[in-house]
Amino acid sequence: MRTMSPRAEPKPLPPAPQLELRESRGYRLKNRLLGPPLDTEMLEHERLGIPTALAVFSSDCISSSAYATEEILRVLVIAVGLAAFSLVVPITVAMLVVLFFLILSYRETIKEYPTAGGAYMVTRDNFGLLPAQVAGVSLLTDYVLTVAVSTAAGTAALTSAAAGLRPYSVEISLGFIALIAFGNLKGVRESGKIFAIPTYFFIAIMGVLLLVGFYKMGMGHLTHQAVNKKGMLKLGSIGSGFAYGAGLYVLLHAFASGGAAVTGVEAISNGVTAFKKPEWKNARVTLIIMGATLGTLFLGLSILSTRVHSVPFESGTPTVISQIGKQVFGGGVMGNTLYFALQAGTMLILVLAANTSFADFPRLASFHAGDNFMPKQLTKRGHRLVFSNGIIALAIAAAVLVVVTGAKVDRLIPLYAIGVFTSFTLSQAGMARHHIRKKEPHWRRGLFVNATGAVLSLVVDVIIAITKFTHGAWVIVILVPLMVALLVRLNRQYESEAEELERDAQAAATAPIMRRHVVLVFVARLDRAAARAIQYARALVPDEMRAVHIAVDRHVAEDLAAEWRRLGLTRVPLELVDCPSRRVGRSALEYVAAELADGNTEVTVLMPHRVYKRFWHRLLHDSTADEMAHMISQLPHANVTQVPYHLGSPSLTVEHVDPPAGDAHGVVS
Amino acid sequence: MRTMSPRAEPKPLPPAPQLELRESRGYRLKNRLLGPPLDTEMLEHERLGIPTALAVFSSDCISSSAYATEEILRVLVIAVGLAAFSLVVPITVAMLVVLFFLILSYRETIKEYPTAGGAYMVTRDNFGLLPAQVAGVSLLTDYVLTVAVSTAAGTAALTSAAAGLRPYSVEISLGFIALIAFGNLKGVRESGKIFAIPTYFFIAIMGVLLLVGFYKMGMGHLTHQAVNKKGMLKLGSIGSGFAYGAGLYVLLHAFASGGAAVTGVEAISNGVTAFKKPEWKNARVTLIIMGATLGTLFLGLSILSTRVHSVPFESGTPTVISQIGKQVFGGGVMGNTLYFALQAGTMLILVLAANTSFADFPRLASFHAGDNFMPKQLTKRGHRLVFSNGIIALAIAAAVLVVVTGAKVDRLIPLYAIGVFTSFTLSQAGMARHHIRKKEPHWRRGLFVNATGAVLSLVVDVIIAITKFTHGAWVIVILVPLMVALLVRLNRQYESEAEELERDAQAAATAPIMRRHVVLVFVARLDRAAARAIQYARALVPDEMRAVHIAVDRHVAEDLAAEWRRLGLTRVPLELVDCPSRRVGRSALEYVAAELADGNTEVTVLMPHRVYKRFWHRLLHDSTADEMAHMISQLPHANVTQVPYHLGSPSLTVEHVDPPAGDAHGVVS
Repeated sequence: MRTMSPRAEPKPLPPAPQLELRESRGYRLKNRLLGPPLDTEMLEHERLGIPTALAVFSSDCISSSAYATEEILRVLVIAVGLAAFSLVVPITVAMLVVLFFLILSYRETIKEYPTAGGAYMVTRDNFGLLPAQVAGVSLLTDYVLTVAVSTAAGTAALTSAAAGLRPYSVEISLGFIALIAFGNLKGVRESGKIFAIPTYFFIAIMGVLLLVGFYKMGMGHLTHQAVNKKGMLKLGSIGSGFAYGAGLYVLLHAFASGGAAVTGVEAISNGVTAFKKPEWKNARVTLIIMGATLGTLFLGLSILSTRVHSVPFESGTPTVISQIGKQVFGGGVMGNTLYFALQAGTMLILVLAANTSFADFPRLASFHAGDNFMPKQLTKRGHRLVFSNGIIALAIAAAVLVVVTGAKVDRLIPLYAIGVFTSFTLSQAGMARHHIRKKEPHWRRGLFVNATGAVLSLVVDVIIAITKFTHGAWVIVILVPLMVALLVRLNRQYESEAEELERDAQAAATAPIMRRHVVLVFVARLDRAAARAIQYARALVPDEMRAVHIAVDRHVAEDLAAEWRRLGLTRVPLELVDCPSRRVGRSALEYVAAELADGNTEVTVLMPHRVYKRFWHRLLHDSTADEMAHMISQLPHANVTQVPYHLGSPSLTVEHVDPPAGDAHGVVS
Repeated sequence: MRTMSPRAEPKPLPPAPQLELRESRGYRLKNRLLGPPLDTEMLEHERLGIPTALAVFSSDCISSSAYATEEILRVLVIAVGLAAFSLVVPITVAMLVVLFFLILSYRETIKEYPTAGGAYMVTRDNFGLLPAQVAGVSLLTDYVLTVAVSTAAGTAALTSAAAGLRPYSVEISLGFIALIAFGNLKGVRESGKIFAIPTYFFIAIMGVLLLVGFYKMGMGHLTHQAVNKKGMLKLGSIGSGFAYGAGLYVLLHAFASGGAAVTGVEAISNGVTAFKKPEWKNARVTLIIMGATLGTLFLGLSILSTRVHSVPFESGTPTVISQIGKQVFGGGVMGNTLYFALQAGTMLILVLAANTSFADFPRLASFHAGDNFMPKQLTKRGHRLVFSNGIIALAIAAAVLVVVTGAKVDRLIPLYAIGVFTSFTLSQAGMARHHIRKKEPHWRRGLFVNATGAVLSLVVDVIIAITKFTHGAWVIVILVPLMVALLVRLNRQYESEAEELERDAQAAATAPIMRRHVVLVFVARLDRAAARAIQYARALVPDEMRAVHIAVDRHVAEDLAAEWRRLGLTRVPLELVDCPSRRVGRSALEYVAAELADGNTEVTVLMPHRVYKRFWHRLLHDSTADEMAHMISQLPHANVTQVPYHLGSPSLTVEHVDPPAGDAHGVVS
């Protein structure tokens, strides 16, 4: 017998045995689809320079410019008609003020929490576990919405240019989600390069759009397009929209719609560790570039929209950005080429934005699970070292959203941004608390920045929740607290289980053994599988041993008894148990329970287990034995052993009449 | 240790133990739905007198009159227009000739096979197992079709009278199927009474219809109804139908449609044992009454249809019988009451006819399964002593047919009757062979009758297969041989398994045991569940014993090793196995395989098995342990034992430090 080495170094696995150990069909399929498995040691972070980091982290944020202006116009146009085009820029500017303070706030976060700066960690560190659940759940719902909104908007960019695809919006969106999920399950390694091309392409083509647009605007060449076209939203009038003092409400509602623009700002703070050294400094620079880019694009598009008179369509396509592109670039080969490039770039960055959530959601979920607030399965790294369960959960949730809303961006937007602003509020408030507690140099300035960020975020959050409530925000307002309550319930369950399982475990391991050990072999008939179980039983040394037959058919039972007599196995006598109810599992359960009744008995139940070669062979036999095993396992101190007999493997069966002379054993030791 | 009593009488179960053995929720639900379980002893046959037997066995046969005339007209009207009404009666008479010979043939069968006179048994007895499979499969497909046709026709009877329900035909048909299946799962005991009312009600109301109809016809009061109404089949012309020598084909096609009328004739021969003594004589009388009744109704309706000019509707509703009823009974309170009674009676007997298949299909399937040609599960009697699996299989198959055909009788009819005539042919040919072999008194007359029956059945079968081939009969022509091939494949699988399992089983049971017995306790962490497994391990007496930890996380492994050192369990030393691939199940498999490599080792693998109180508690934990157990079970001589630990049952755990003084044991012995 071996004893453990004092250092307890894990030993490498002993050499492969002679037995052929084939991988299952499912595993081979997984290997083919996802590539070879990755060992745990291969878990490492790619270190990113600023240009690559900008591409990796900013797609979610920057891509928001593709729909933010449209969503503001969607509210204004209906309420106040063409007056919308004098209100859209001020509202955009107001949102940019919020963005400015968020960027400042996150500069602080990046410096103070350079390793794990997500809202969950910051909130947990400063306010504790429960508020962290609120921040985390809020973000998780928003990640789901980011995937749904981004793929839906990416699809809209595609179908704006290719009208023939419009009836298939839902299918295309689902295709995007499946593609991204698959890529993430594979564990995309060259993420930096993949991200760089679409992001910079989008920034470049948007730059061209703004330059050409402003040039034409300056020259007076950019004209209004016709409004009131079929499918466009019906224009309201300034009188109707602002009647009865509703003016402020309309403005706040439009502002709330613009809130979608600043989602994704938190992405960099989640991934500071991925930057090249000095991490926090590089991350800060990237953050500011990202904010400036988003601000420029968002504002530029809003200004151009006032000149083009782009009115959103009820169906969502063609998009406002597509209308602006058409009007700015005009016709001709050149114009058309630029227009299609714009749509392609928009589509690509939006799909990429969804990809960001596929990086963030599973990691955040694994934090929750690590703190025992979500199912443990979310902490498990899969075949390719990614959190596969989180990826699959996100894909399913987003797919459901896309189907339910018909892949319509404007139906998703009211649900969006509430979660992210909730997490902004908590994480910035947490930062404020951090400054007060730590009182590090410049803490007063930091406190001012983060407190302002927290207050602004809270205000925006409340505005969104109120003005969008009846449009769908109520779902999130109800869902987040429900989810948090559920997570707390899960946590209590985990904690109570752990408490019970760990109490005096060491004492239990060394507790005295039961006074009596009984081995029962359940046999339905005497075949080689049963014979194998009996052979195994004879290798055991219990206090009592017998074979038990649950007799459903009296003739079968009598035949078996006769066979047993011929067998002459005195060590394993047969007992027949009458079973008029034909409930074999129940009879076995009651029989074993009777053995255990003295409270000081250990019962080992041996079940002959016929292992069939193919799945359909197994289907040909009823599962009574499995049911019996399952039912008996419900009894404490009833230990069910499956004794396998492999059909179709004659070399591996029971005839070992002549043991080999030499000691072949010792492969392991 | 007990030895078996020499008579090997099954012992009743020992008295219930103190442990609380609750029935599962599923079982309690089953009890509530289906009623209390029935013991095997309660399996008995109700003995039926002729009036009740007629009701029980004839619904399938007699109810065919509800659609047979319509199906003949459906062919004729399209082909030859109003000339159909001079052809329908001759075709009906031709089918009645076939019926006459079938009745004569089955009179022979009933006498010669009074205990099990079904086509399967007769064919097996005279031609062997393979032809019996053909006869059986043919009948089984026809039973499925009987359920589909009868419920669809019953629904048509309902929706003919209640036009508002027509859009829900499929749902209503499925409802009927579900209802009948549920009733059969409950095991309807008072079947005689239940059957009697609708059967005699139908016969009575049909009698009234024919009497009033013929009276009015005789008085010249029964007039043609308007044809060419919206929804009716378009009338052809005698010229188009009989052009190009197609006349004979049209007649044969119409005749084939009428073949549906004689399905169900075999029902009595399946159930002779259910009759009061002398069984075969009573069964014969009932058979003749049934044939006469069917003949009268079928012929009467065909004659009335010629007078009423009832033209089938494309949608199937209103039915021909409904048109005849309206025309014969006329309007007014009296007429309407009789009309609705006619429709209600038709619906009820059709639904009852479906019920007949639910008695026959599961029994026939159990014959196949008993001969190892169908899955064994079909031989198992369920909660209420009925063949539950067969009932469920039939219900699903019929439901699929109803959905696929949209519950349209005329789409189902072409598939119908082929199967039943195939089984008629085989069973009558079998009877002919029987007469030749046995040469009992009057065997020549019997031979003549059965040979004629066989030839006639074969001719009708071929006519149906050819004329209906393109209308759907090809499905059955392909399906039946395919199914037979599948059954033969299943049979080979069963036989080869049985051959392998039974070879030298007695010798295997007494074969020498393995030279070495190793016990391995797989532990992920040291909690009470693991402690429980260790405690159990210590009750075993193997040659070697150790605990094994598959180390995915090095820190966890080192902590566990430290705990183990504190434990000081020298009998169960811990071994750590490195697992960089994170494939815990695979590593465990390879480890156990290495132990087994000498080919003379028995490995017992102990798995701590945490039994959670509720289903959702279990969902919170990953199933790695189950996967491990499953994978390791793939190795011969690797015997996996689940050592249960029950969460939330503190009274049943491991502290039995002071064993009770007295011998509490012996409840069983």
